[in-house]
Amino acid sequence: MEENLSIEEIKRFFDPQSVAIVGASRKSDKFGSVILRNLQGLGYPGRLFAVNPHTSEILGVRSFPSLEAIPEGVDIAIIAVPAFVVPEVMADCARSRTKNVLIISSGFNEAGEAGRKRLEETLKTARRGGIRIIGPNTTGILNPKAKFTTTFTPLTGEIREGPVAFIAQTGMFAGVVLYYIITSERFGISRVAGLGNKSDVDDCDILEYLYEDEDTRVAMIYMEGLNDGRRFLQIARKFTRTKPLVVLKGGRTSAGAKAALSHTGSLAGQYSITEALFKQAGIILVHDLEEMIDFAKILAYQPVPRGARAGVASMSGGEGVMASDSVTEAGLVVANLASESSNYFQSLLPQWAVAGHPLDLEPLQETVGRSEAYRIGLEIILNDPNVDICLLVMSIVPAMDESIIDILAPLLLKRVKPVAVAVVGAKQQCENLATRLEEMEIPTYPTVARAAKSLAALYHYAQATNSGESKC
Amino acid sequence: MEENLSIEEIKRFFDPQSVAIVGASRKSDKFGSVILRNLQGLGYPGRLFAVNPHTSEILGVRSFPSLEAIPEGVDIAIIAVPAFVVPEVMADCARSRTKNVLIISSGFNEAGEAGRKRLEETLKTARRGGIRIIGPNTTGILNPKAKFTTTFTPLTGEIREGPVAFIAQTGMFAGVVLYYIITSERFGISRVAGLGNKSDVDDCDILEYLYEDEDTRVAMIYMEGLNDGRRFLQIARKFTRTKPLVVLKGGRTSAGAKAALSHTGSLAGQYSITEALFKQAGIILVHDLEEMIDFAKILAYQPVPRGARAGVASMSGGEGVMASDSVTEAGLVVANLASESSNYFQSLLPQWAVAGHPLDLEPLQETVGRSEAYRIGLEIILNDPNVDICLLVMSIVPAMDESIIDILAPLLLKRVKPVAVAVVGAKQQCENLATRLEEMEIPTYPTVARAAKSLAALYHYAQATNSGESKC
Repeated sequence: MEENLSIEEIKRFFDPQSVAIVGASRKSDKFGSVILRNLQGLGYPGRLFAVNPHTSEILGVRSFPSLEAIPEGVDIAIIAVPAFVVPEVMADCARSRTKNVLIISSGFNEAGEAGRKRLEETLKTARRGGIRIIGPNTTGILNPKAKFTTTFTPLTGEIREGPVAFIAQTGMFAGVVLYYIITSERFGISRVAGLGNKSDVDDCDILEYLYEDEDTRVAMIYMEGLNDGRRFLQIARKFTRTKPLVVLKGGRTSAGAKAALSHTGSLAGQYSITEALFKQAGIILVHDLEEMIDFAKILAYQPVPRGARAGVASMSGGEGVMASDSVTEAGLVVANLASESSNYFQSLLPQWAVAGHPLDLEPLQETVGRSEAYRIGLEIILNDPNVDICLLVMSIVPAMDESIIDILAPLLLKRVKPVAVAVVGAKQQCENLATRLEEMEIPTYPTVARAAKSLAALYHYAQATNSGESKC
Repeated sequence: MEENLSIEEIKRFFDPQSVAIVGASRKSDKFGSVILRNLQGLGYPGRLFAVNPHTSEILGVRSFPSLEAIPEGVDIAIIAVPAFVVPEVMADCARSRTKNVLIISSGFNEAGEAGRKRLEETLKTARRGGIRIIGPNTTGILNPKAKFTTTFTPLTGEIREGPVAFIAQTGMFAGVVLYYIITSERFGISRVAGLGNKSDVDDCDILEYLYEDEDTRVAMIYMEGLNDGRRFLQIARKFTRTKPLVVLKGGRTSAGAKAALSHTGSLAGQYSITEALFKQAGIILVHDLEEMIDFAKILAYQPVPRGARAGVASMSGGEGVMASDSVTEAGLVVANLASESSNYFQSLLPQWAVAGHPLDLEPLQETVGRSEAYRIGLEIILNDPNVDICLLVMSIVPAMDESIIDILAPLLLKRVKPVAVAVVGAKQQCENLATRLEEMEIPTYPTVARAAKSLAALYHYAQATNSGESKC
């Protein structure tokens, strides 16, 4: 019961019917101004109010001197005023019976004794009023489906809806990382939650919500500290049984931990312990943003494999060697192909060539052409009974014929075994091909090493969560 | 003396005065045709001949029935005919006193007993004629300065001249990897040598040549096997004393070694031994192509550091935490800034903010603006006496003001300490900024982790080669 209540409270942060921006402003560089314009730009369909005592209207939105003055009240208040005013605004929230508050402002527990006191006072008022808080020191929420955001970094361009959620303890994730994903990646986003200093709502609350959220198929978290490690592991275990969870932990080293303390006031525990516990809970740990995104897209898109045996086909013998090394180093195994597969492949090769595995498609293209060579290679590894995981390596020349995608599509859309495609070569052609492939939910990578690691993440997820289930 | 003779022989492969393409063809998909068109496209200024008994002219180039029939002889013959014809062509090379031969064709020691015999016969003839061979089974040479190439993958667009050489035991490097570098990277290339099966000329010969070559500042090698490990280590030790050498070894795992055997007929030794010996020789080992390129550009562009202490400035506290972890995990140390630096930084911050290191520029931008915040951050870490290595993390929003580069340029061009810039955010703006920075020879990376690893490679190179010198 309590859990469901909490999920409803959290849901309101992502999908409010009415919003007030405290500190809304006409000055375009003020956070309160950017937030308002972001909401207008996304086309937020709910009721929108400004709280600013100096005016009755900002950018076409009605402004009130306080939250209490808004006759119908609001679902959520976004606070974007200097830290020292926040305790007072929180009192206004309590009086107006606002139940969800997002504090953008920084200058609390990351800012010395005065900041800590300021936060304590704010939290006391909030608790008395039954108010849930996200922040302080954060960009907050983005929900493309609800056309709702609290972020103060200017949003431009379309934000694709999709299966990947992210939670972060830094404004970056609703800022530059979001820009990175929107402009460089092709997967879509379900929800973004920037939690800042996690004075109340934390990763656990958001994960509970995302567990129920039907739009989310995979979650990534950038985390510096945890309020309640035990509760997090409990929720993570439940979450990872049905949805993969990728975590980038900041503060793995003592230098990182020190930086985390001054960034979000977080105490990072000893990483070796965190690592062991997180892995037991089925969490996939990564070491940087690129790896996080690499893993998230394959976890969102592809089925889990039944085993670790990888089939590889490439247009270059060198890529085949590199793929064999990468696959092995990532914890997978280069498959022993069934003799039927090898014999069939050999029968198609020119006389001088000897069939091996990884399949070297270069000799084959001399007899059947480039596109057909890729099709045959992919078909062999997809159908081979000794292969659990497929890695196709495409060598992209400037004269690439994009119709290759239509030729491969029927095979790629089977979705019986997980497939990743390494797309290596001329930039523009690689990007075109990657876009087409990822529109079909086939993850692509610029090197065999990154493709192999990502396939291995899928395998390790399957392993960790199966073993988790069998223990129950 | 013998060494100098050998270097002259190798030099002729890269800078021949006259070339014959054996197997030149009018059919546009034939290797012999692509090679000819590539040479014409690059504007090769030497004398160019075709060898094809069926015609007297191909694409405007005079064709002869054999090498022997070319009255003035040639510096180099490029052989692009089926494998079974190669022994016969080699006899023609010997008769015509051609001293440099590049064999494109595959179907030799990677292709069973018949292939091995074919190669033996070819080599015997070559030895008798005092002929040096690159290949078989390769794309061979690219020398942008001499406008010379033997590659059979169609070259398009300008190939930037620059300080990075690469040697590879796979056609990929003169093919898709070259396309990748030309279209995605901004550094230039001095020489490319694809060595294929290394039946004669090997990495050692090329390294001897590159050691003397003034255009080359750093070399990267993709290597599956070595003909003479002892000689390679000897040359590598000499080479790394003045120029960095980055090696990607194929066949690190048993699966990779097996694939290498069928790719180039190479026997890969046990990697742990190779790894130890290579590191002792000052070689920087990498695990994939991306890392190879990441490292090569910083090694080519930036001065080596005097120590391992890294100064970090970023526009996001989260990036500062991630950078601290990455720097430490890469084997560097987050510097303790001098108190003068910290006090100066603190004096510029708004009252609520507490100065730490990594420098968090976010509060600073609130008082001095974004560009000036970056400039101050970079200046502090560049000037701090406790900092050996500088990592600047830039958060790139769509509204990025590119004049930031002009503001940072005077600092970046000092070149007293190595600098890397992580450029994270909106794609097009990141690319524009990266281009501007790399034109100034400041290497850029899409994540702090890759920047930190690359800075660490520079440090490890300095360490390995200094200790190498002190032993002499």
